[in-house]
Amino acid sequence: MSKTRLEAFSDGVIAILITIMVLELKVPHGADWGALAPLFPVFTAYVLSFVYLGIYWNNHHHMLHAAARVDGRVLWANLHLLFWLSLIPFATAWMGENHFAPLPTALYGAILLLAAIAYYVLARAIIAGEGPGSRLAAAFGRDWKGKASIGLYAAAIPLAFVREWIADLIYAGVALLWLVPDPRIEARLGGGRGGT
Amino acid sequence: MSKTRLEAFSDGVIAILITIMVLELKVPHGADWGALAPLFPVFTAYVLSFVYLGIYWNNHHHMLHAAARVDGRVLWANLHLLFWLSLIPFATAWMGENHFAPLPTALYGAILLLAAIAYYVLARAIIAGEGPGSRLAAAFGRDWKGKASIGLYAAAIPLAFVREWIADLIYAGVALLWLVPDPRIEARLGGGRGGT
Amino acid sequence: MSKTRLEAFSDGVIAILITIMVLELKVPHGADWGALAPLFPVFTAYVLSFVYLGIYWNNHHHMLHAAARVDGRVLWANLHLLFWLSLIPFATAWMGENHFAPLPTALYGAILLLAAIAYYVLARAIIAGEGPGSRLAAAFGRDWKGKASIGLYAAAIPLAFVREWIADLIYAGVALLWLVPDPRIEARLGGGRGGT
Amino acid sequence: MSKTRLEAFSDGVIAILITIMVLELKVPHGADWGALAPLFPVFTAYVLSFVYLGIYWNNHHHMLHAAARVDGRVLWANLHLLFWLSLIPFATAWMGENHFAPLPTALYGAILLLAAIAYYVLARAIIAGEGPGSRLAAAFGRDWKGKASIGLYAAAIPLAFVREWIADLIYAGVALLWLVPDPRIEARLGGGRGGT
Repeated sequence: MSKTRLEAFSDGVIAILITIMVLELKVPHGADWGALAPLFPVFTAYVLSFVYLGIYWNNHHHMLHAAARVDGRVLWANLHLLFWLSLIPFATAWMGENHFAPLPTALYGAILLLAAIAYYVLARAIIAGEGPGSRLAAAFGRDWKGKASIGLYAAAIPLAFVREWIADLIYAGVALLWLVPDPRIEARLGGGRGGT
Repeated sequence: MSKTRLEAFSDGVIAILITIMVLELKVPHGADWGALAPLFPVFTAYVLSFVYLGIYWNNHHHMLHAAARVDGRVLWANLHLLFWLSLIPFATAWMGENHFAPLPTALYGAILLLAAIAYYVLARAIIAGEGPGSRLAAAFGRDWKGKASIGLYAAAIPLAFVREWIADLIYAGVALLWLVPDPRIEARLGGGRGGT
Repeated sequence: MSKTRLEAFSDGVIAILITIMVLELKVPHGADWGALAPLFPVFTAYVLSFVYLGIYWNNHHHMLHAAARVDGRVLWANLHLLFWLSLIPFATAWMGENHFAPLPTALYGAILLLAAIAYYVLARAIIAGEGPGSRLAAAFGRDWKGKASIGLYAAAIPLAFVREWIADLIYAGVALLWLVPDPRIEARLGGGRGGT
Repeated sequence: MSKTRLEAFSDGVIAILITIMVLELKVPHGADWGALAPLFPVFTAYVLSFVYLGIYWNNHHHMLHAAARVDGRVLWANLHLLFWLSLIPFATAWMGENHFAPLPTALYGAILLLAAIAYYVLARAIIAGEGPGSRLAAAFGRDWKGKASIGLYAAAIPLAFVREWIADLIYAGVALLWLVPDPRIEARLGGGRGGT
């Protein structure tokens, strides 16, 4: 019951974030290609952030699905994650409207970094409630993907000031890394479910 | 369980899209008919898009209701559909504020086309999970309505540059085509349900 | 199942409408009472519309709770109601920002009228699905409150051009009329539930 | 059933409020630190309000979870709470954009005070439905924390005009007081659940 409401609230927040981002695609005044062209970087940033929020929703979905119960610590770890995700529309718009300038690109990476850390903390909080021998703990294992993402974001932030496109490549690369649903959890829990 | 959350998330996104569109009806400064009149094309475009989003929600509802289970592929096909739907408020506002000028009208058609293709892909992804002999596969059948919509949208895009009102007529016509709940699914599944 | 999703979607739309109205309370630039004062009519209109949307949510909640099933006709009657409700934030802001001028006040009444008619149509669509001998049909009975509201709104629209405050009084009065949960439904269904 | 929809609607409203606040973080035009700096007070106010809305969601969650049933009185007490919470984004933006000037800071406190009173009224309405001997009534007990918050907010409002930072300290202090999930309810109900 408790878990249902946590999922519903998180779904609500992520659904709103993913849609209010589109409000930054300001409707241009002209009706020709020239009016549409300046929106291209904002649109590109929107696509990237849409994919990221989709990935977070997807992974959140799988993780909560595998969790048996949630406690107060999980509720707050979840709100902490939602806080950083809530800044993605701002960072997206700032980066897009400034044509991927160094500082906005670095800030975008910083928000992704803090969201990734918050996700890691949330995963630990859920696993702590499940016990070290739980399926979810086994499914997460050493979590190389989460750790690699955190390392890559941390590297992208200073690199945004050297060559901005390297940071962009990193953001796009990490997104690709996560686009496939987590095989660790799918495999183990899928097998577990199949065996039940 | 998994399906419930997919439905809830999709409902959330569509509910937000359908309501943020109304924010483009900018409150006029004057308090007379003259102040209200310029909003008429924006309002017309709002009505059309409200109906389209209602149709998508309705059909999505029926299709998911008929699906027995969802997997990672369906989750992403669903996000892909939501992405194109999320651009409808932008396209609506741009078309409305420019009094249905050719390029905005063509862009509106392009978004509808991409959303229709995404819906088709989602339907295929769900049917692939259900198996070719499933009730849903039978209910969809040859899907002439989905294919006809795709063809009509594709025709409307160039026609918007010839005679803009032809494109509008096509958009309104396709909406009318879908306004009735899909008899294929209703009939077959309704019968199936009645027989159970 | 179907009913759950209809409720969830309606809740989502009403929740969003009730909250985006607050975006019309534009943050003033100064930090003194003089900066706050011009917001007073907008705030008053906000309170009225918040109460109206609360009433609709509340009655919608009771009516759907009493309904055994929903069909395609109910889905569309529900979307039709949501369409008119979606225009409440616009009408509220226009009325508030123009200090309850005649035309915006009349338009506000027109939206309330159309929403009330849409609610009536929705109730009929649900009752049609339940059958004339259903508890819901009995609970609605002659529906004097719904019909009185429609009559009062229809009277308020021309009166807004004569004496604007008469229309305001009518809107506030109808809201008071509905503020108490519908005793017809509560009594009959409450008794029915107690007897089960 | 009824409770589920009340929770879903409240979740929806709180989720939207928590996310539309971020729209007040207006995207700056420049791409350097100088463009970002003026957003700092708005961001600080955003963090405070995010925490407050998180606390309300969290406590609301626990309280409703413990409630066995809801009636019309609870529905309206809940809408009353949501009304005051809906003004938090406005008060947050006004306070943040005016760098915590006295009047906006006092208004922020007034909104917190009215929300706290509304929460108290909601708790009483739920307990009235549960009966005086219920677990929830026992769990709330003398409710020193709720009463202390109300007293502190009432004190902060005049203090904002004397030394504005004292009011800020009080708001932050009350938030810290509530950040831990309510041990009264957790302990009693947790034990009760364990014993069942």
